Amino acid sequence: MPIWFKSIPSAIDILIELLYKYTIPYIMKKLLLLSFIMLAALACNAQQALWGFSQIVSPEVNPDNTVTFRFKAPDAKKVQVTGDFLAPVQMDTPYGKFDAPGAADLVKNSEGVWEFTTEVLSPELYSYSFIVDGQKMPDPANVFQIRDTATITNVFLVGGDYADYYKINDVPHGTVSKVWYDSPTLGTDRRMTIYTPPGYEKGDKRYPVFYLLHGMGGDENAWSELGRATQILDNMIARGEAEPMIVVMTNGNVAMEGAPGETSLGFAPPTTQLPKTMDGTFEQHFPDVVKYVDTNYRTIADKQHRAIAGLSMGGFHSLHISKEYPDMFDYVGLFSAAILPHDGATSPVYDNLDQKLAKQFSNAPKLYWIAIGDKDFLYDANKEYRKMLDDKGYKYTYRESPDGHIWKNWRIYLTEFVPMLFKNNTK
Amino acid sequence: MPIWFKSIPSAIDILIELLYKYTIPYIMKKLLLLSFIMLAALACNAQQALWGFSQIVSPEVNPDNTVTFRFKAPDAKKVQVTGDFLAPVQMDTPYGKFDAPGAADLVKNSEGVWEFTTEVLSPELYSYSFIVDGQKMPDPANVFQIRDTATITNVFLVGGDYADYYKINDVPHGTVSKVWYDSPTLGTDRRMTIYTPPGYEKGDKRYPVFYLLHGMGGDENAWSELGRATQILDNMIARGEAEPMIVVMTNGNVAMEGAPGETSLGFAPPTTQLPKTMDGTFEQHFPDVVKYVDTNYRTIADKQHRAIAGLSMGGFHSLHISKEYPDMFDYVGLFSAAILPHDGATSPVYDNLDQKLAKQFSNAPKLYWIAIGDKDFLYDANKEYRKMLDDKGYKYTYRESPDGHIWKNWRIYLTEFVPMLFKNNTK
Repeated sequence: MPIWFKSIPSAIDILIELLYKYTIPYIMKKLLLLSFIMLAALACNAQQALWGFSQIVSPEVNPDNTVTFRFKAPDAKKVQVTGDFLAPVQMDTPYGKFDAPGAADLVKNSEGVWEFTTEVLSPELYSYSFIVDGQKMPDPANVFQIRDTATITNVFLVGGDYADYYKINDVPHGTVSKVWYDSPTLGTDRRMTIYTPPGYEKGDKRYPVFYLLHGMGGDENAWSELGRATQILDNMIARGEAEPMIVVMTNGNVAMEGAPGETSLGFAPPTTQLPKTMDGTFEQHFPDVVKYVDTNYRTIADKQHRAIAGLSMGGFHSLHISKEYPDMFDYVGLFSAAILPHDGATSPVYDNLDQKLAKQFSNAPKLYWIAIGDKDFLYDANKEYRKMLDDKGYKYTYRESPDGHIWKNWRIYLTEFVPMLFKNNTK
Repeated sequence: MPIWFKSIPSAIDILIELLYKYTIPYIMKKLLLLSFIMLAALACNAQQALWGFSQIVSPEVNPDNTVTFRFKAPDAKKVQVTGDFLAPVQMDTPYGKFDAPGAADLVKNSEGVWEFTTEVLSPELYSYSFIVDGQKMPDPANVFQIRDTATITNVFLVGGDYADYYKINDVPHGTVSKVWYDSPTLGTDRRMTIYTPPGYEKGDKRYPVFYLLHGMGGDENAWSELGRATQILDNMIARGEAEPMIVVMTNGNVAMEGAPGETSLGFAPPTTQLPKTMDGTFEQHFPDVVKYVDTNYRTIADKQHRAIAGLSMGGFHSLHISKEYPDMFDYVGLFSAAILPHDGATSPVYDNLDQKLAKQFSNAPKLYWIAIGDKDFLYDANKEYRKMLDDKGYKYTYRESPDGHIWKNWRIYLTEFVPMLFKNNTK
């Protein structure tokens, strides 16, 4: 008889002793935890997870800044990864040449796990998807996804350089709020994102305000999610590189009350609402936003303490809002702006551009900042606009970057624009 | 020569006329819009979308509350949908029987679009995924997804009955904020979600506070996302069924500063952090939360104007926090609570339960509400706890519902608990 068998009776004794020694509830707790753990384990096999933990690590950002993707699919025939870290593939289309993101093949190992490791990647927030036997799908091991209009992709971050601003670091954090404001001009309540700097709640200090506008297809979540604006602000304020400020991120589509899924339309699919995005209505309603913010937040409510900037359509909006209300903003940023001074709409917003710019620049903003990528399809439109400003002698600062009409540029522009705001200026 | 061909010269004339009639910028604007539209169209075919609009509508909630799912995949061999609206399948496992969500087959039509229509569904927020040739994946036509711990599923809502509380209706909306509070007890800053009722920003009124806690595997986003807590509050306040109140949704995992992806751990995969969830630390630090809220928000800072409730582990926390600080909460809700009065940890929080409950019930809460589903695996633990309360003569209200340990129940409990809070009681 093996020794372990002999010890069973004494094991039972010990169990009985434990039963008496500890309370029944204690034993029940252990059983409860056990059942939790069993269910979690089950989740790995069941169709629907209780918790759904992945047994696979993907993506893995390696110490040398290569990144490894993994996907478990023993029966798949082909698994690829596509993302903005791969060299684009030029497609010939009826509309001309178009850069599509490249794809790389994963290779299957003996356990049925497909794997691919990138080259060394430069610091950046990257996005990607898998293509499994022709079907595009997210990485099931990575719960981190961002929606860009109607596309959802996984994301990962390679740190270092400016990308360290995009990280959530162990610094004081501001508050990020989803706020509904009333617009008498539009006759609706609308949703926006407001960042208040660390310490806002505690004190009675007043702050300058930076209005930050998204592009076509975006919404009030775009800058805080794709743009990492709240991380950039937290980190720049913590390093003393930016003044503490309130940042107001509106929704530029006046036909929408808020982002898809966040309004009374329910889970209706995203739409760009083109008809009412660039017809003057957003610009006309903008004083409602400023009034709401000045009424309900501790702002310094003057031109010296207000900035406005936007990307693409948001740059177009920033141009027109800042010239329409020339006493409102002392800092103006046009990021890859969709600069088109007149759209043929009946809105008076786009009338008399020359006169209005003359008025704006007669008491010129402290900073009028124009930035664009040298591959941006709006490059020429911006060049023309700059030429017009040059001809009139209106002062602005110009920043040309590599690349095109992409978030990488807009995040970088934000890290460059924010430190220039409200310097030597906060009361 | 067909008539349309004859008209070409006059069409050219009109174009030339237009060119002169309108300004060049106007034409450029049209070209810009055109290029946007072309890129959006391209996105349907390219690997990576600019906007990625789907040509497929899925899911479609039909007028009769059946729901149709569609998935375009001409080359797929088998497409299924799995979700909580399908009858579960009982699995035999080494751990016992386990209800796994069922799956239904989609049928391919001549355009390569797979389709399935459900039976009539009762009002509820449902979740689902597709299974395409054995690979589970989200519905690419539906951008609405919710993360539950490490699982992401698509969601849709069938309205009516109590599910109308989960909708975003055209009513005044409160503000939802992500706030970092400092905990001297833990020595860290931590993230939480705070709902302030409509009108909070404008007035100087003070409000009662409801602390709402999540379950194991959850975080400070759980109640606002899976729980639809902010929609429920907006709708109940608008209908006059609930008092305007502040709702504070904490993170019950003290080993985490905040939800996955929202802390300095970066995009690290979710983990339940079991070791520090039910060891007394969360309960001990809770006064830090209450102090932060009372210091930084316009609260009515007394027992009569404070409520606490939680689901599963959050019910366990609510039980212990309310008895540990017997003068803090006049309303206590245990939703499917993981009731286990002692876990063998060294924490004094779990010592002397009898004495502490005696103290709490000597000045009993106005409401001590226990709710559980009749199929919940914690049913017996709750029954025993109620028996103990009965034996001592401590008053509580009991609510038994159908179903098990699922969000459906917790959302319903919230709609039932909230109207009982702070009635005839607000200053």
